[in-house]
Amino acid sequence: MAASIPEVVVLRLPLYLRALALLEEEKKEMTSSQELGERLLMTPAQIRKDLSYFGKFGTQGKGYNVSQLLSELRRIMGLEREWACALIGVGRLGRALLDYSGLDRQGFHIVAAFDIDPQQIGNMVRGLVIQGISELSAAVKGRDINIGIVAVPPSQAQYAIDCLVGCGIKAILNYAPVTPRVPRDIRIYGIDPVLALQTLTFHLKNLSTP
Amino acid sequence: MAASIPEVVVLRLPLYLRALALLEEEKKEMTSSQELGERLLMTPAQIRKDLSYFGKFGTQGKGYNVSQLLSELRRIMGLEREWACALIGVGRLGRALLDYSGLDRQGFHIVAAFDIDPQQIGNMVRGLVIQGISELSAAVKGRDINIGIVAVPPSQAQYAIDCLVGCGIKAILNYAPVTPRVPRDIRIYGIDPVLALQTLTFHLKNLSTP
Repeated sequence: MAASIPEVVVLRLPLYLRALALLEEEKKEMTSSQELGERLLMTPAQIRKDLSYFGKFGTQGKGYNVSQLLSELRRIMGLEREWACALIGVGRLGRALLDYSGLDRQGFHIVAAFDIDPQQIGNMVRGLVIQGISELSAAVKGRDINIGIVAVPPSQAQYAIDCLVGCGIKAILNYAPVTPRVPRDIRIYGIDPVLALQTLTFHLKNLSTP
Repeated sequence: MAASIPEVVVLRLPLYLRALALLEEEKKEMTSSQELGERLLMTPAQIRKDLSYFGKFGTQGKGYNVSQLLSELRRIMGLEREWACALIGVGRLGRALLDYSGLDRQGFHIVAAFDIDPQQIGNMVRGLVIQGISELSAAVKGRDINIGIVAVPPSQAQYAIDCLVGCGIKAILNYAPVTPRVPRDIRIYGIDPVLALQTLTFHLKNLSTP
């Protein structure tokens, strides 16, 4: 299924999930593509088209049952289970991620932490002993880790990612400001504030020169 | 111009910039859509199509002049100047951002820091005195701030964003895991590791159930 669905649609699925979870918290039973569109600043048509990739949801005139659509989307996205993650890089950013309770709450558990700096190895951080990269492979197998999170400086990023790939990890969240080379079957998602700010300045520039 | 260009194309511009900057560092004078495609895991056709939104670049058979394309893209994206940013939220994440030298190096300067917690106000962090939100408006005008960075807990995010919008800020980088309501002319970019991880699990799930 995944191959035939445009990546932009996949990128929007978590937004639908977030909006539906909020509606559920508000005890709303039903919703519509209009209501979702208003909350997500999207057109209702776009939302209906996106959802149509995954099957038939909702009833004409009645809309979507909130908790039903929520659990369908969670299943489609592989979120009916918990996921174990390995963190590589325990500097300030890595520690902020370990501190962020939102990850655990959403079913993503950092169960092992690694660093390349020998000074860090052996230290405790939020209940985890920081390990050396040489222990990554055993941890991935022993703890059923499927996701790697890379929070190392740019110069170490390709090495950290190569290590994760070598251990059989297929999904990587990369905070280092580089575009790493990975085999075709590896899914990598980069988070870089500079790239985000650069898309914002594009819009600022085009606001001021109409 | 901005309105007619698909948002996905705008989101890819920083990746082109990053790849071109690396080619320039490597002292390459010319490049091609093939070479860029290999580095960015995209097809050459996609790259040529994206660039065609902004004008005619390169020469058939000769490719693109690296530093010329780089400076053209930087101009298009509003990066031929420096940008002043206000940070709201000086917790662990906010401090990690203040520490991150990549922002300054790329021309984004956090020139003022704010917090809602009265305990924080008046403290110094990386050379900035943490201010209360009531001082935001004066700072935005006095320091020519165009971009707000929100690193507060989810419960405070809408308030922080409303304050930025009220001060005339049109571009916001939002780290809080919420979809805030903003007027149509405000450009907001959300960074949330949970959303990123959820798109990764979609792919993991569809790897294992072909």
